[in-house]
Amino acid sequence: MKTYLDCIPCFMHQALRAAKMATSDERAIKEILDRTGDMVKTIPMQATPAETGMMVYRIVKEVTGVYDPYKAIKRKHIAEANSIYPELEQLVEKSEDKLLTAIRIAIAGNVIDLGINKTFDIVSDVKKIMHQEFAVFDYEAFKQALDGAKNILYLGDNAGESVFDKLLIKALKKPVKYAVRTKPIINDTTMEDAIESGLDSVAELVDSGSEAPGIILDECSPAFLDTFNRADLVISKGQGNYEGLSDCSRQVFFMLKAKCAVISNHLGVNEGAIVLKEYRAI
Amino acid sequence: MKTYLDCIPCFMHQALRAAKMATSDERAIKEILDRTGDMVKTIPMQATPAETGMMVYRIVKEVTGVYDPYKAIKRKHIAEANSIYPELEQLVEKSEDKLLTAIRIAIAGNVIDLGINKTFDIVSDVKKIMHQEFAVFDYEAFKQALDGAKNILYLGDNAGESVFDKLLIKALKKPVKYAVRTKPIINDTTMEDAIESGLDSVAELVDSGSEAPGIILDECSPAFLDTFNRADLVISKGQGNYEGLSDCSRQVFFMLKAKCAVISNHLGVNEGAIVLKEYRAI
Repeated sequence: MKTYLDCIPCFMHQALRAAKMATSDERAIKEILDRTGDMVKTIPMQATPAETGMMVYRIVKEVTGVYDPYKAIKRKHIAEANSIYPELEQLVEKSEDKLLTAIRIAIAGNVIDLGINKTFDIVSDVKKIMHQEFAVFDYEAFKQALDGAKNILYLGDNAGESVFDKLLIKALKKPVKYAVRTKPIINDTTMEDAIESGLDSVAELVDSGSEAPGIILDECSPAFLDTFNRADLVISKGQGNYEGLSDCSRQVFFMLKAKCAVISNHLGVNEGAIVLKEYRAI
Repeated sequence: MKTYLDCIPCFMHQALRAAKMATSDERAIKEILDRTGDMVKTIPMQATPAETGMMVYRIVKEVTGVYDPYKAIKRKHIAEANSIYPELEQLVEKSEDKLLTAIRIAIAGNVIDLGINKTFDIVSDVKKIMHQEFAVFDYEAFKQALDGAKNILYLGDNAGESVFDKLLIKALKKPVKYAVRTKPIINDTTMEDAIESGLDSVAELVDSGSEAPGIILDECSPAFLDTFNRADLVISKGQGNYEGLSDCSRQVFFMLKAKCAVISNHLGVNEGAIVLKEYRAI
């Protein structure tokens, strides 16, 4: 997916939010905004928004020296998600269609996104999404692909959401590799976050090699690309991964909540919609 | 009021909205965003946001050659406001406290603001505000000032809102001068808009001399400053005028709806609050 003009003010918002997370020094925050402003004219509009997001966070790191501004809040979200995990596990156990309930929960976890200018409440938002209708629902195709799959690659998104992913991975009942970001970026799941979310007990954790807040194949390691190409089934969580893979050369199942106008327009759904979408390379 | 760091992403949003109003040429829109981005480092943080807003709209004019991108939508809002005017006039007539009802309607009209990243529906928003509690309600002070006033200066804000101002001006029952922007800026009321709103039948229209989307005294004409200083009572509508006058050297009554976090924090109210505030120079 390319960058849209509407993404540009959003980059300034992202810069401001990350800058405030990293420091309370107003001069440093202003410098981050100045440099993000200067960057606008260099944005490659044919690249994905996630790539520009990476540039924004590099500026924040360079100016403040803070490598992981969202570290504390990621801990908090993982703890919060862990605290409702047993209840959600029960919900899956008791449901008629365990796989579908686990998919719903995994998508519900996608509300935990600090790259987006929206507030959220994990517990109440998860409960709401449990009853929300899907705007795209390629469930039959997903079940068919799952049936035939010997191995699955699951592309993680945000820390906290990662805990909900654990439930879905258990429901898949197949060997799963779970891909994390190679370095901290926004509140995306890193290796450390994945372990804290207990994902190492249900999946093999793999480093994507991508520093962007999304799987950008050009940025990924050769080892990861091999895993990506060989996987029988790829599950991609969230907007950032969608941005990177919406035109890729293989089948991918996207699970996400459309949280901004650009993504929802690209998907042809309303803002706030939940999506289980099969993508096939043309 | 100074510019806050939170205003900076908002300038990018304003640039994008105005650019899209002025043209559908994506390269021109990108150029406007590039130049607005470059401008960030030059923003005088001690100046008001309205002054930077003026710089943004200058860029839009320079790149597109469009002098008044909101012209058509201003016409639409004035027509829409005119169409519900008779109903609102009846509401004032039938109410126990005619002055207060007219103040409420004038504040309700302040939802018509295209500088802010919010959608609005004139008719339903006006009806909602009729029953909303004031977060600041210096009504007694206002009535007292009105009683003693021989002449009133009323600082207009947005086109469309201007029609509702007419109702309040009639309810004031005193000679009123109504100040307009000297040139088109966002959807603010110019002389032409004021006449189309029928304000010339209830007030003497005066040009503030300010090109900013708010009364910035340093930008105003000497004639206007004289009117401002000599007025017995000054009524200031909206956020832009508040930004310019929140530290001025005379008494002002602010009437507005707090539509963004920066203004609501500055006023010490919640976002969305309605305010009738007496300001006195310290």
